[in-house]
Amino acid sequence: MIVVLRIGHRPQRDMRVTTHVGLTARALGADGMYIAADDRGVVTSIRDVADRFGGEFFVEDKVGWNSCIKRWKQDGGVVVHLTMFGLNLPDVEEEIRTKEKILVIVGAEKVPGDLYQMADYNVAVTNQPHSEIAGLAVFLDHIAPNALHREFPGAKVRVFPNPCGKTVEEL
Amino acid sequence: MIVVLRIGHRPQRDMRVTTHVGLTARALGADGMYIAADDRGVVTSIRDVADRFGGEFFVEDKVGWNSCIKRWKQDGGVVVHLTMFGLNLPDVEEEIRTKEKILVIVGAEKVPGDLYQMADYNVAVTNQPHSEIAGLAVFLDHIAPNALHREFPGAKVRVFPNPCGKTVEEL
Repeated sequence: MIVVLRIGHRPQRDMRVTTHVGLTARALGADGMYIAADDRGVVTSIRDVADRFGGEFFVEDKVGWNSCIKRWKQDGGVVVHLTMFGLNLPDVEEEIRTKEKILVIVGAEKVPGDLYQMADYNVAVTNQPHSEIAGLAVFLDHIAPNALHREFPGAKVRVFPNPCGKTVEEL
Repeated sequence: MIVVLRIGHRPQRDMRVTTHVGLTARALGADGMYIAADDRGVVTSIRDVADRFGGEFFVEDKVGWNSCIKRWKQDGGVVVHLTMFGLNLPDVEEEIRTKEKILVIVGAEKVPGDLYQMADYNVAVTNQPHSEIAGLAVFLDHIAPNALHREFPGAKVRVFPNPCGKTVEEL
C-alpha cells in the first residue's frame, strides 16, 4: 500500500500543482492521498477524475501531517520523504520496494525541518531542483508494482492506446 | 539529443507548470526546451536555476511550434508527442531509445489536432489523466541515458545526498 501525504499546500495558489500530485499518485499506483490543508476544490477535482476513470483512489484533506506520520508509523508503515536533499532513488529503491506500507511525503517549497528526522527515508530523484510532481512520478514508477500497467475497475470513461489519434470509450 | 517543445502555454496562468516542465527536463537529461509562447518570466527562472546548478540546458521562448517540428524533422530528428491518448511508453520505449535526436512535445490541456499526425510517436505514460510534468519525468527516466545520474558541470551550488538533513556546497 502506498499513500501520498501532501504538505505545505497553500489553498488557491497550489491548487493546480497539488491536483497534478494527486492525479499522478492515482495514475501511477498509489492508493490515496492525504492533504495537510483545507482545500475542497482540489479534493473535488481529483475525486471527479477518479469517479470517471475508475479505481479506488481516495483523497482526504484537513489532515494533520504530524499525527498522520505518527499514526502511520504506529501501524507499522514506513515514511519516505521526497526531497532534493535526500539519498538518490537508485541507491535506496531496492530496500524501499520490500516495504508493504509506504507513506510518501510530497512537500511544497518549504517543509518543516523536523520532517528529515521523522522520515525513515529522505529520497531524492536526483539532487537537482525540479518538481515535486516529477519526483513523485519517478518514485512511483520505480516503487509501485506495475505502475505503468494499472487496472482501474469501474471506469465510466476509458482511453485506449492509439498511435495517431484518440480512442475514447464511454461506458 | 533530447529537446522539449512546450506548446499551449498560457503566459501567467501556466507559468508554474511550464517552469516545472523546464526544470524536470533539465534535471532528467534533456538538453533544452523551446516554448511556443512569449513568457520571459519562465525563461528567466529556468535559466537562473541552470546558471546556479550547472550544466548546458538552454531555454528559448517565442518559438513557432509548427516550424519547429518541421525543422526538427528536416534535420533528421524524430518527434514524440506525449499524450494520454498515445501508445503506452513500455510498448514503444525500446524503439525510441535507438533514436539520436528526439523532440518531445509537452502540451497543456488542449493541443492542435494536427499534432497527432505530425508526431512520429504519440506516447502515453499510462492512458490515465494526470500531469504533463509527471509524463515528461517518466519518459525521460526511461529514454534519456543515465537520467538519474547526470553531471552538471560549472555548478555554483551543489547538493550532496544526505540521509537525514541538507548538505549544500556553494562553489
